[in-house]
Amino acid sequence: MSTRLGDLVESLGGELIGDPALLIDGIAPLDAAGPSHITFLSNPKLRAQAAATGAAVLILSRIEHDKLQGYAGARILSDNPYAYYARAAQYFVARKSVPATPGIHPAAWVDPAARIAATATIGPGATVEAGAVIGEHCVIGAGCHIGRDAEVGDHTCFHPNVSFLADCRIGRRGIVQSGAVIGGDGFGFANDRGSWIKIPQTGGVRIGDDVEIGANTTIDRGALDHTVIEDGVKLDNQIQIAHNCVIGAHTAMAGCVGVAGSARIGRHCTFGGAAMVLGHLTIVDHVHVSSGSLVSRSISEPGQYTGFYPLAKNADWEKTAAVVRQLDAMRDRVRELERLVKQLTGDKDSLSRD
Amino acid sequence: MSTRLGDLVESLGGELIGDPALLIDGIAPLDAAGPSHITFLSNPKLRAQAAATGAAVLILSRIEHDKLQGYAGARILSDNPYAYYARAAQYFVARKSVPATPGIHPAAWVDPAARIAATATIGPGATVEAGAVIGEHCVIGAGCHIGRDAEVGDHTCFHPNVSFLADCRIGRRGIVQSGAVIGGDGFGFANDRGSWIKIPQTGGVRIGDDVEIGANTTIDRGALDHTVIEDGVKLDNQIQIAHNCVIGAHTAMAGCVGVAGSARIGRHCTFGGAAMVLGHLTIVDHVHVSSGSLVSRSISEPGQYTGFYPLAKNADWEKTAAVVRQLDAMRDRVRELERLVKQLTGDKDSLSRD
Amino acid sequence: MSTRLGDLVESLGGELIGDPALLIDGIAPLDAAGPSHITFLSNPKLRAQAAATGAAVLILSRIEHDKLQGYAGARILSDNPYAYYARAAQYFVARKSVPATPGIHPAAWVDPAARIAATATIGPGATVEAGAVIGEHCVIGAGCHIGRDAEVGDHTCFHPNVSFLADCRIGRRGIVQSGAVIGGDGFGFANDRGSWIKIPQTGGVRIGDDVEIGANTTIDRGALDHTVIEDGVKLDNQIQIAHNCVIGAHTAMAGCVGVAGSARIGRHCTFGGAAMVLGHLTIVDHVHVSSGSLVSRSISEPGQYTGFYPLAKNADWEKTAAVVRQLDAMRDRVRELERLVKQLTGDKDSLSRD
Repeated sequence: MSTRLGDLVESLGGELIGDPALLIDGIAPLDAAGPSHITFLSNPKLRAQAAATGAAVLILSRIEHDKLQGYAGARILSDNPYAYYARAAQYFVARKSVPATPGIHPAAWVDPAARIAATATIGPGATVEAGAVIGEHCVIGAGCHIGRDAEVGDHTCFHPNVSFLADCRIGRRGIVQSGAVIGGDGFGFANDRGSWIKIPQTGGVRIGDDVEIGANTTIDRGALDHTVIEDGVKLDNQIQIAHNCVIGAHTAMAGCVGVAGSARIGRHCTFGGAAMVLGHLTIVDHVHVSSGSLVSRSISEPGQYTGFYPLAKNADWEKTAAVVRQLDAMRDRVRELERLVKQLTGDKDSLSRD
Repeated sequence: MSTRLGDLVESLGGELIGDPALLIDGIAPLDAAGPSHITFLSNPKLRAQAAATGAAVLILSRIEHDKLQGYAGARILSDNPYAYYARAAQYFVARKSVPATPGIHPAAWVDPAARIAATATIGPGATVEAGAVIGEHCVIGAGCHIGRDAEVGDHTCFHPNVSFLADCRIGRRGIVQSGAVIGGDGFGFANDRGSWIKIPQTGGVRIGDDVEIGANTTIDRGALDHTVIEDGVKLDNQIQIAHNCVIGAHTAMAGCVGVAGSARIGRHCTFGGAAMVLGHLTIVDHVHVSSGSLVSRSISEPGQYTGFYPLAKNADWEKTAAVVRQLDAMRDRVRELERLVKQLTGDKDSLSRD
Repeated sequence: MSTRLGDLVESLGGELIGDPALLIDGIAPLDAAGPSHITFLSNPKLRAQAAATGAAVLILSRIEHDKLQGYAGARILSDNPYAYYARAAQYFVARKSVPATPGIHPAAWVDPAARIAATATIGPGATVEAGAVIGEHCVIGAGCHIGRDAEVGDHTCFHPNVSFLADCRIGRRGIVQSGAVIGGDGFGFANDRGSWIKIPQTGGVRIGDDVEIGANTTIDRGALDHTVIEDGVKLDNQIQIAHNCVIGAHTAMAGCVGVAGSARIGRHCTFGGAAMVLGHLTIVDHVHVSSGSLVSRSISEPGQYTGFYPLAKNADWEKTAAVVRQLDAMRDRVRELERLVKQLTGDKDSLSRD
């Protein structure tokens, strides 16, 4: 299963400095790579490690190429070595992976009124309801459920045990990890003298192309309109997207993020793990929210936002938390001190005011 | 599938001001409603929008009815327009939805020693163990698992891929969204010289009537006694309820909330998204916990409680977080300043003390 | 199903003071135990309750044995009464539980190229791919999926609807609760001019012996190397373990914890509910992180660490949070006060500096 280096570069681009006839088996990290491996240098801090690598081929930028000495192997010059590495890894995985066998597994159940492309694969224990449409080259893993009138675009892959419910749609080249639930009812109730009356959730979920959805992530259907996930969005595991949210294209969220109902999040945003967004907020493009931070107001300016209590030894936290509880009183004491000191100094020194 | 307006009002109550022969197709928001739609006004701030709506019928309170001018369509007067809207939406959904076909799907597996009501529906790929009881008009979705001796009350609906494990019970008219796990083992271990010895979890889960449980929410079984979810509780997605908790009637929790073991939560409480409750606490009725807040002590007084670090631009957060880490020392400095200023003023001005 | 007390003590150890011929039915809490029950005293604060218990047998330490008066039943002396209770409860559960019937259920699907031990049980609706290995006495619950070449050690039990994906391994005596996903793709992407390029995740998950994994918990496969969960680790529900993490032996995590990629966590650590650990950190052995705390830096010293905003009534929180946002300015004001007071006192009193 070796690959000719020249074939790889012809497929992925970049400038090759070295022998195109070299045979390569796969990718490895700088410190573990051997004479049949490609490796990459994307972080200048690792230049010394790159100089010492035993790899046959090194992916690097032109700037690093000019600076790197002591490394004698082949080189691939790329504007973005890390992205080149990702594509090279995809290249090797595609060659090694066992292709799915098209067709409906005898242990699956597919309603006669569903439309399954001839090149699609439906795994054992999967169930597909009437009106569902499964595109070309799709893989629907074992135990998945595809609801009534749901649509799955070409080349999209569902890992085992995904629930993709009625009237939901996902575009092409999507990947949905196991246990994800797309199209559960949004959480909508009207309170009537203490009891909750369910508001039917009649919208769907609309997911664009090239979207990845993590394991056990949940995306609720909209109340009247749809919940929308735009092209290229990447969601990690255990994320909760509530009804009627719009997640802008190419936004990425790490594990355990939660987004409350009707929030509108821009394009090219990133969210660290366990960040939370309250409902009905708007966040513009290119906003980056740190892990563990709660977004309680709309954000109208791009940039990095943070809000978590700093970790400390428990005994120290006990002391600072006790002061936090009295911060309002402490501010009053500082004001009073300022008043008194102003009197004492005869007002000749200025003091800041709030 | 149009509905005569008079039939709707006869079914749901309220006072109709307008032509009962009007034909209505469904519900729409104020700004999108047309001549075959009902809409509603529950927020006085939207009065101007209501005046301009193109809806055929408007649900509103008597107070708003007296104030609203410029709207010429039919009106339904209700004490609680939002709840009326919820019920009207249910009315239309019930008329349009495809009824489940009673019976056990040929691709389901049901133990002969389970009891399935004749009007119940068991979906493809579902499995039902011996001793389980499924009530009248229940719908058990595709891929659900109903454990040994578990009981499901009449008119309860499980969406696909729910795990409802041995000895658990849920009442009537419940809704359980996909991926929920009811009756996993509580997390109980005794430490013995560094290793953890499992404490068997032999209690069950007891869920009342009219309870909704969100997608991928988990409710653990009790250690010796049961975990209890009382009537009318509404749980959103990805909530974790640990063993031996009691969640009081009509309490509602938004997504990603966690409740640790043996917590007792009152009735008519609400929890914002990602709120957390520590174990063995008691929270009285009518407590409202804000999103992202951790409840570390029992709450004995109704009201709204909050505790999350305010979001800021990252650079600003870096500065304030650095001060938070030293708040204890800052308090000491303020005290010392107060002592010195008191000396300087000859004690003739009073200073607050802590 | 009664047990002779002497047989129990012979099996579990400890010193019996009482009649070995007593017949015992099971375990009960101190206040609910009757003449056929064993109970235990592990918390000295409950000594008065223990004195009044109606239990036939009391497990307690030698110290408590010497102090306890007024209790007339049998006693079992143990160095660790709580661990003894755990083992006694296991003893009774094992006697009462319905043993799984070995064999492959007719409603399961197993690839002919999988190896299933003769004593293993494969439940209805379960699917097992080619190359998978299921050990002796394993129980694979209804609807579980075992991926290609995955390996499950002897005596390991999967509750219904677990996804255990290709190339993952778990050791002996493991327990995996429903809805858990082991081996989803790690969250790895390279950004290329605004779009995300997927980095294939080609490592696996390696789980040791005696590991318990909670309901809907997710453990991702590694990018190039494996994600590692060492022996004796206990994970509660809805935990997220990202790619390439190492969780040290006998570490326990409560519900909703998240660990970002490549974090290395030591042995014998504990994490309270909803604690979060950022990526690429190292945490030494015997670290205890409180609930709701975010670990943003490596921890090199054992001990208890905390970092969450203290809960308050909402109105009070509004006030303190407003001050938190200005803490940097307040520090400046305190410094200025110190400067002025120093001038006023003629520098004869010392002031702390930061």
